[in-house]
Amino acid sequence: MADFYDLIVIGGGPGGYVAALRASQLGMKVALVESAQLGGVCLNWGCIPTKALLRAAELYSNLFHLHEFGLSATNPSFDLEKVVARSRHVAQQMGRGVGYLMKKAGITVVEGHGRLDGKKGEAHNVQVLREGEVSVTLQAPHVILATGARARQLPGLEQDGKLIWGAREAMTPASLPKRLLVIGSGAIGTEFASFYRDMGSEVTIAEVADRILVAEDAEISQLARKAFEKRGMKIHTATKVGSLHKKGDEISTTLETPKGKIDLTVDRVICAVGVQGNTENLGLEKTAVQVEGSFVVTDEFCRTGEAGIYAIGDLAGPPCLAHKASHEGVICVEKISGRSPEPLQMMNIPGCTYSRPQIASVGLTEAQAAEKGRKLRIGRFPFRANGKAVAMGEPDGLTKTIFDAETGELLGAHMIGAEVTEMIQGFVIARTGELTEAELAETVFPHPTISETMHESVLAAHEGALHI
Amino acid sequence: MADFYDLIVIGGGPGGYVAALRASQLGMKVALVESAQLGGVCLNWGCIPTKALLRAAELYSNLFHLHEFGLSATNPSFDLEKVVARSRHVAQQMGRGVGYLMKKAGITVVEGHGRLDGKKGEAHNVQVLREGEVSVTLQAPHVILATGARARQLPGLEQDGKLIWGAREAMTPASLPKRLLVIGSGAIGTEFASFYRDMGSEVTIAEVADRILVAEDAEISQLARKAFEKRGMKIHTATKVGSLHKKGDEISTTLETPKGKIDLTVDRVICAVGVQGNTENLGLEKTAVQVEGSFVVTDEFCRTGEAGIYAIGDLAGPPCLAHKASHEGVICVEKISGRSPEPLQMMNIPGCTYSRPQIASVGLTEAQAAEKGRKLRIGRFPFRANGKAVAMGEPDGLTKTIFDAETGELLGAHMIGAEVTEMIQGFVIARTGELTEAELAETVFPHPTISETMHESVLAAHEGALHI
Repeated sequence: MADFYDLIVIGGGPGGYVAALRASQLGMKVALVESAQLGGVCLNWGCIPTKALLRAAELYSNLFHLHEFGLSATNPSFDLEKVVARSRHVAQQMGRGVGYLMKKAGITVVEGHGRLDGKKGEAHNVQVLREGEVSVTLQAPHVILATGARARQLPGLEQDGKLIWGAREAMTPASLPKRLLVIGSGAIGTEFASFYRDMGSEVTIAEVADRILVAEDAEISQLARKAFEKRGMKIHTATKVGSLHKKGDEISTTLETPKGKIDLTVDRVICAVGVQGNTENLGLEKTAVQVEGSFVVTDEFCRTGEAGIYAIGDLAGPPCLAHKASHEGVICVEKISGRSPEPLQMMNIPGCTYSRPQIASVGLTEAQAAEKGRKLRIGRFPFRANGKAVAMGEPDGLTKTIFDAETGELLGAHMIGAEVTEMIQGFVIARTGELTEAELAETVFPHPTISETMHESVLAAHEGALHI
Repeated sequence: MADFYDLIVIGGGPGGYVAALRASQLGMKVALVESAQLGGVCLNWGCIPTKALLRAAELYSNLFHLHEFGLSATNPSFDLEKVVARSRHVAQQMGRGVGYLMKKAGITVVEGHGRLDGKKGEAHNVQVLREGEVSVTLQAPHVILATGARARQLPGLEQDGKLIWGAREAMTPASLPKRLLVIGSGAIGTEFASFYRDMGSEVTIAEVADRILVAEDAEISQLARKAFEKRGMKIHTATKVGSLHKKGDEISTTLETPKGKIDLTVDRVICAVGVQGNTENLGLEKTAVQVEGSFVVTDEFCRTGEAGIYAIGDLAGPPCLAHKASHEGVICVEKISGRSPEPLQMMNIPGCTYSRPQIASVGLTEAQAAEKGRKLRIGRFPFRANGKAVAMGEPDGLTKTIFDAETGELLGAHMIGAEVTEMIQGFVIARTGELTEAELAETVFPHPTISETMHESVLAAHEGALHI
């Protein structure tokens, strides 16, 4: 005896709950199985609470630049407990929001760990486990796996939750570490480095690649490094971190940098060296679902090797971004419902890092575009030549656009500086609508805005920027 | 004996100097005649210095909300002289930048007042006057008039520069008026109201129309009013301002509101009741150039009734926006050079107001779209359902999109809230590239950003928003 649904979604993160919502909009009877909190890592322990922390850090940092604007205030300080409490409150508020959305949409939320357990006729069985016991079995012809990913643990760098932090501990500190080592300089490591530096920690970043933010365009990555170093961070690239030796309330290690070994003692370590998919204990071994590395193999409509079983979001592999997950959820469900959605274009998925300065991009980096053998036209425009950026006191930044010289196709756009995470969508819209260089050149960007750097960057690639 | 050019531009504001730059890029020999400062009102006495003031006001206002973020500081204060000095410094810096651009482009900048003075063969004569005397005469086959506009003066409300301010006095106050009346609630009036309220003035707005920001969608206008009233402004719409009686260092007047007369005494009045074109003393009377009201009549390529004479920007009529002027400059020059530019689509010109909250829009308002008899699909998404907005502490805002129900054309987009002036360009790109509702629905907006409200608003119009 099992509860029967049109669709079962395992995992309540942005991919899973959006898939459930879209399925409900399309008239399906949906169950959503989640063992922890609705909203997943993104909403509870990722994107949202970190943005609350970074906002506090930005406002706090502003207090030390007031005089530049003719303003003043004394005794700038913070109560870390309150800063963290606000961040948790925001996460909880948005989490409750997801619960409300599920209820309003008539989606059955089942608490527990979902696991595939063979088929009955055309339907897949999904066992829901609580405390290791099967509490209920659900059935549906379609099951979407959306169990996400977790931080990768490297041997010798295992998070212990006390001295060696993962994201959860890093976003709920009881006190501010005086000295902090951040291992890994992707978006997550960089955002924490930025937060803690703004709050007053001495921050060292160790990155194994030869530059930070290795997914970004090399020029942007270089500008980010300069900006972070200007803020007093120490950055070591092409660097291996030796074993971590805990002693009392501090950790010692040796950094093997290209310039030699550096002994380092810090109070806390944040380990942010990538993620791995949560493929375990899903019952995949009894199915034709294929796993490569730690990620489930899917086609362009999120179908796995097993008919009726789909995987979306982080579980289906990089880029591990919430907006990629939720769009996959929509596409997957629309395909199931018999519609003809367009497959997700990986080239049209933007990426954002919410450090100071902010970084945002879409499409190919210059190196990637060059590798494809295309003839390129590249435009750049610095924020210091933009009136709004100067008026805002934010003259450090760059917008860079890369076009195919023959077709005028926008191959990539890369931005660093104030507000760029809110601006990049314009380039995403341009890519989605296949606007050419000439059409972007004709577009009227409002004055005075920092978004004019987008226009000027296009003009620079096209026939010459005007304002530089 | 006269200096001969391919093109003479009269007026060095954004329209004029951009026209000169583009002409120079296209190989023309260009003279730019300007009687005051390069950059025009926009750069020296408008867009740019006000953004510097508004940034100071925003940062100052943040000081009173620190506790909400777990932060604190004591004795928040400002030095108005320094706030103003920074604003002037930013304007001067950008003004020098324009001078540098002219020099680099090899454009001859001629100081003085330019006036048409008949033709010699195919060339138009332009006299340049200094202190009323002709200092030099220039000749060119093409002359672009770009003399801009100035504040409209209403009888009884004439600016006196002391108690009754125009924009110049309003952006260079020697002291903060305790009580301020702002007459007119367009972008300029609203921005000053917002600035002075943030700095601590008691602000009253009087608007003759039945709502503030009358160019904006009525729903946005209503939300702006609520937000301003929440900040403590007093707003009177459908209101006539009686004569202004100066007495010592204050002004008394009577507001005729729909609810009756209100006597009001204030320390300063800012009059911002629109602009009129600077058509005087340009020598137009000897030409076939037509003037309607105070604006020069032009066709879609900025041509006037007189061959070889063009008008762009504010002088050519509303919308009086710098980005409209500069695009007209480019289009006009490209047409002169024998290219085939696309005419400017007035529907694709965004408008921004940089008050708190910010307001930005493009295309038709709901009322305008309804008037055209189109069947509409309208989507709305409030910022309070957006994770980034909540994390930023900016939950008040709305993104509203209006589509043609039959074609899926984006007819208009209207935004109010944090960062919207930097976001609206996405909708402008969408309109320029003629993206449909379905294409915008498929676009991957980055998470977590406030720009996701743009996506959700489209979804709301399309088949239903996901996150509300």
